[in-house]
Amino acid sequence: MRYFLTIQYDGTNFEGYATQKHQNTVQDHLEAILSKIFKEQIKTHGASRTDSKVHAHMQLVIFDSEIAIPTDRLKVALNNQIREDVFVQSVEIVNDNFHPRFHSVEKTYVYKIAKQYDVFNRNYQFHIFKNPDVELMREASKYLIGEHDFSAFCGSKSTVVNKVRQIYEITITEDDKAIEIKIRGNGFLYRMIRIIVGTLLVISEKQLKPIKMQEILESKDRRQAFRTAKPHGLHLMEIVVDEEMKKI
Amino acid sequence: MRYFLTIQYDGTNFEGYATQKHQNTVQDHLEAILSKIFKEQIKTHGASRTDSKVHAHMQLVIFDSEIAIPTDRLKVALNNQIREDVFVQSVEIVNDNFHPRFHSVEKTYVYKIAKQYDVFNRNYQFHIFKNPDVELMREASKYLIGEHDFSAFCGSKSTVVNKVRQIYEITITEDDKAIEIKIRGNGFLYRMIRIIVGTLLVISEKQLKPIKMQEILESKDRRQAFRTAKPHGLHLMEIVVDEEMKKI
Repeated sequence: MRYFLTIQYDGTNFEGYATQKHQNTVQDHLEAILSKIFKEQIKTHGASRTDSKVHAHMQLVIFDSEIAIPTDRLKVALNNQIREDVFVQSVEIVNDNFHPRFHSVEKTYVYKIAKQYDVFNRNYQFHIFKNPDVELMREASKYLIGEHDFSAFCGSKSTVVNKVRQIYEITITEDDKAIEIKIRGNGFLYRMIRIIVGTLLVISEKQLKPIKMQEILESKDRRQAFRTAKPHGLHLMEIVVDEEMKKI
Repeated sequence: MRYFLTIQYDGTNFEGYATQKHQNTVQDHLEAILSKIFKEQIKTHGASRTDSKVHAHMQLVIFDSEIAIPTDRLKVALNNQIREDVFVQSVEIVNDNFHPRFHSVEKTYVYKIAKQYDVFNRNYQFHIFKNPDVELMREASKYLIGEHDFSAFCGSKSTVVNKVRQIYEITITEDDKAIEIKIRGNGFLYRMIRIIVGTLLVISEKQLKPIKMQEILESKDRRQAFRTAKPHGLHLMEIVVDEEMKKI
């Protein structure tokens, strides 16, 4: 049967979500504990591969096992054994064909920027020294809304062929202490949000006109966009899946 | 001349503010960096001794040196060398007789309680499993307002003789996820807030009637009050000093 977990994690002390050589990933940790509980090797599949130091307020994970453990009991057992920077919010049994990556229809990320240093948010906000012009960022972000080939905003290590994605919304809010960039779309390419944010920051510093965002997008050339923003400001907030596909 | 620093720190990875044998305190770290900058041994004095894992959004510190360093330059030098979980918010030169402990007139602490586990607040909120009755806490807290001998709420290691303190305000706010207990007074005894919070929690669980708070207070006996609440939920928020005493 297929188990479906909703988890959250603080990415500060992990080298990202997905298994790597170094082993210090959320997936490695989760699979080690699941394998102990199920007394068999458990292999999981997540909805999103988040980078080292990126946070997830909602991450979706599936795995299969023939062994039946009541979902309530499994949730308690997992949270008792898991590291304190990971938390299992819910456990469900879903349709054997449901996959959180292929059946996710919408993802929301928030990138958090601190205008003044705050020790309590040092791992959750990217601290900038210049005072950015948020209106310029808002103007530039409008060119990205809709369905586009986002090759210019895709990290060079990506192996994905189809680089067309749809962005539904970019909302930028600001108060005395922080700026938050909320980006909602049907899916995102490798490092896409961090490259978009890095480019928005260059525009906010008046080094570039907002209209340049459209030229960068149309160039489909990663070298036209700017630096990748630091990972620790990035938060995966929500993943919407096709609920029909979950039904058994 | 007397330097006056306003600092903030995340207490998670420190064994408290004040110097101890173990050396891993905020004061030790601060004095090491100041001594390097001033090229002489610097000894500091803080407004509050916070326990291991307790956080300070505002802590006040003085030290003396014959060496004149412009306050702006000193602030930058300190923040360049200090650990990322400490931040120097301001540097001033004050009257040689000003002492942040003796001339503080009001302190505000907030104790944060999580009703549901949150990885992002795990070091900043105390997570409880029972759903507390906040109305009972509010009722019990009223008996503590005003000037009282708080011996019943003083940790046994305290060497202070006069245990009379004045509490101006206790405000308890609640939302879906958290409870915050704000306590404002002219000063607090060793572990006083954590023992008050621990006792309020027992009352919130209906193990004890709110009126019992008055009996505990009047007993002046530490054994009548309840468990000391965990340190990581405690935040020193603000210290008000007699501004006249700062003037040179």
